[in-house]
Amino acid sequence: MIDILGIGNAIVDVVARADDAFLSRHDMHKGGMMLIDAAQAEALYAAMPPGIESSGGSAGNTCVVAAAMGAKAAYIGKVADDQLGAVFRHDSLAAGVSFATAPLIGGAPTARCLILVTPDGQRTMNTFLGACVTLDESDIDPALVASAAVTYMEGYLFDPPAAQAAFYKAASLAHAAGRKVALSLSDAFCVHRHRAAFRDLVKGHVDILFANETEIAALYETNTWEEAVAAVRTEVGLAALTRSEAGSTIVRGSETVQVLAEPATVVDTTGAGDAYAAGFLTGLTAGKSLAICGRLGSYAAAEIIGHYGARPEADLRGAMAALG
Amino acid sequence: MIDILGIGNAIVDVVARADDAFLSRHDMHKGGMMLIDAAQAEALYAAMPPGIESSGGSAGNTCVVAAAMGAKAAYIGKVADDQLGAVFRHDSLAAGVSFATAPLIGGAPTARCLILVTPDGQRTMNTFLGACVTLDESDIDPALVASAAVTYMEGYLFDPPAAQAAFYKAASLAHAAGRKVALSLSDAFCVHRHRAAFRDLVKGHVDILFANETEIAALYETNTWEEAVAAVRTEVGLAALTRSEAGSTIVRGSETVQVLAEPATVVDTTGAGDAYAAGFLTGLTAGKSLAICGRLGSYAAAEIIGHYGARPEADLRGAMAALG
Repeated sequence: MIDILGIGNAIVDVVARADDAFLSRHDMHKGGMMLIDAAQAEALYAAMPPGIESSGGSAGNTCVVAAAMGAKAAYIGKVADDQLGAVFRHDSLAAGVSFATAPLIGGAPTARCLILVTPDGQRTMNTFLGACVTLDESDIDPALVASAAVTYMEGYLFDPPAAQAAFYKAASLAHAAGRKVALSLSDAFCVHRHRAAFRDLVKGHVDILFANETEIAALYETNTWEEAVAAVRTEVGLAALTRSEAGSTIVRGSETVQVLAEPATVVDTTGAGDAYAAGFLTGLTAGKSLAICGRLGSYAAAEIIGHYGARPEADLRGAMAALG
Repeated sequence: MIDILGIGNAIVDVVARADDAFLSRHDMHKGGMMLIDAAQAEALYAAMPPGIESSGGSAGNTCVVAAAMGAKAAYIGKVADDQLGAVFRHDSLAAGVSFATAPLIGGAPTARCLILVTPDGQRTMNTFLGACVTLDESDIDPALVASAAVTYMEGYLFDPPAAQAAFYKAASLAHAAGRKVALSLSDAFCVHRHRAAFRDLVKGHVDILFANETEIAALYETNTWEEAVAAVRTEVGLAALTRSEAGSTIVRGSETVQVLAEPATVVDTTGAGDAYAAGFLTGLTAGKSLAICGRLGSYAAAEIIGHYGARPEADLRGAMAALG
C-alpha cells in the first residue's frame, strides 16, 4: 500500500546565478519555465555561469517531501541510462521514494532544467525534456497505481505528448481501483499552453486540484480571486489554492477552509508549491481534516522556502505528530 | 601569458549530510580524504543520502578562485567523455579558467568525491579517482607550462602513479622556462602516504610550498610548530603555512611574515586552503609583497568559508584594489 504515487518529468536541476541582463539577452521571462531543445540547451549551458546540480522535477520534489513527512511515496518518471539519470535515481531511493521506471537506453539524455537565479532571489527555468518525452503508457505500472491512495501528477506532463496519454491511463487505472487522482497545474505558462486540455481534465478526471493564484486565474480566465474560487468549486471535488504568504484556501463542495501560511524566512521559493502538495496529501492519506491537511502543507512549504533548493534539509516526521 | 596554471585531479563533488554513526559504519576518518575504488564508490553512493553535485578538485578550486580575483588561470586535469566531465569542463570555462586537457574516451568515468557533512560542519571525503588515474605526461602541454608564471600542483596528484610522472615533467618544463613551481600538500593522510617522495620533491623541485599545520608536521615529523617552521625554512625557497583562525606564517630564507586571518563567519571550511593559495599566488604573480600576498590569501579563504562549497559566490576582483 502506497500513500502517494507521483508521476512527472524526471529532471536534474542545474542552478547558476545570473543578472537581469543575462535573462534579457537570452529572451527569458523572469520567474517562468520555458521549454528548450537540445541545441538551445547546449548554447545556454555554454553561456551560463558555473552551476550546482541536484535532482528536481515538480512531482519528484513532492514525493521526496512526502517521504520526509512519513508518507509512503513512489515515483514514475523517465530518466536516461546515463550519469544524471543515476543521480536522479539515487536521490529518489536515498530519500525513501520507490522509483522503478525503466531508464531510456540509447536515446536522449536525462532531462535537465537550467535555472538562473537573479539577485532578487527569483528563479527562471529553462527545461530540456530529453528522455522525459519518451515517458508513455507502457511506463504506467497498473499494480502500482492500484496500490496508491492518491496518484499525483504535475501539469508539466502535458508538455511531452506521450506523457499526456500516460496521464490519462494512470487516471483511469486509479479510478478503476477506487483511488483518487490529484493534479498540480505547475505553472501559469503551462496552463496557457494546454488550457483546453486542462479544463477537460480537471472536470472529468481529477479529484484533487492544486494551483496557485496565477495558475487558477489562467485556467478559468478570471480576473478576481473570488471568481476563480467560485469556478473551481463547481469543477472539481477538492481544490487547494495557494497564495504565498497569504496562506491557502481549500474548497470542497460548499465547504471552504482558510489556512494561514507558516511564518518563514524566505531564502528561495522554488518548490514551495510542490512541498505544500506533499504536506497536504500526507495529511489527507492519513485521514486528517482539511484544516490539518492545509497546515501540514503550509509547514512543509515553510521548511522548503527557508533554504536553497526544493528538497527538504530537515526530517519532517515530527510535523504529523505536532500538527496532526 | 598565464599567471597560474593549476594541475590536479579533476573531480566532481557529491555532497550529502550524514551523522557520525554513518561515518563509523563505513570506517571513515572524520575530516580526512580516503581513496576508494569503483565498487566501493558504488556501494557508498547507494548507502548515502540524497546529494548535491558541483565541480571540485583542490587545484581546480584554486584556479577558479584566482580567476575570480582577476588572475589569468588555466587548468590541466583528466575528466572522462561523460556528463560529469562535461559539467566539470563547463564550470571551469564559465569561471574564466582555460581548460583544454583532452578527455579520457571509453575508459573509467569522471572522478567523483563522495563527501559526507556531519552536523558539526566537518567534511569527510571519499574519492573515486576514475579517469584521473590516466592523467600522464602526454597531458602536460609544454607551451602552456612555459607561458605560466607559476605552475601550481596539488599533493593529491601523487595518488595516481602516472600523474606523479606528469608532475615531474611539468616541474622540469617550468624551471627550464624560468618559471616557478608551487605545491600544496593537500592533506595529512596524503603526506603520510607519500612522505619520502614529498620530501624529495619539496627540496629538489618546488619553489613555493603551501601547507597547513598538520600537513607540515606530517611532512617533517615534527612535534611543534616552531620545529616545522625551522625545517621548512631550510628546505624550500618560499613557504606559506596556514593555521586556520590563527592566520598564516610566510617563510622565505631568514624572512618571516605573520599574517592575520580575515574575520569570517564559518559556514563550511572546505576549500579554505585552496582559496588561500589562490589569493597568495594572485598577489605574488602581480608582484605584491609577501604581506599583501598573505592578506589576499586570508581574504579569499574568508570568502570561501563563509558559505557552503569551495568555489566563490562573489566577484573577488575588488580585493586586489582594496588590499593590494
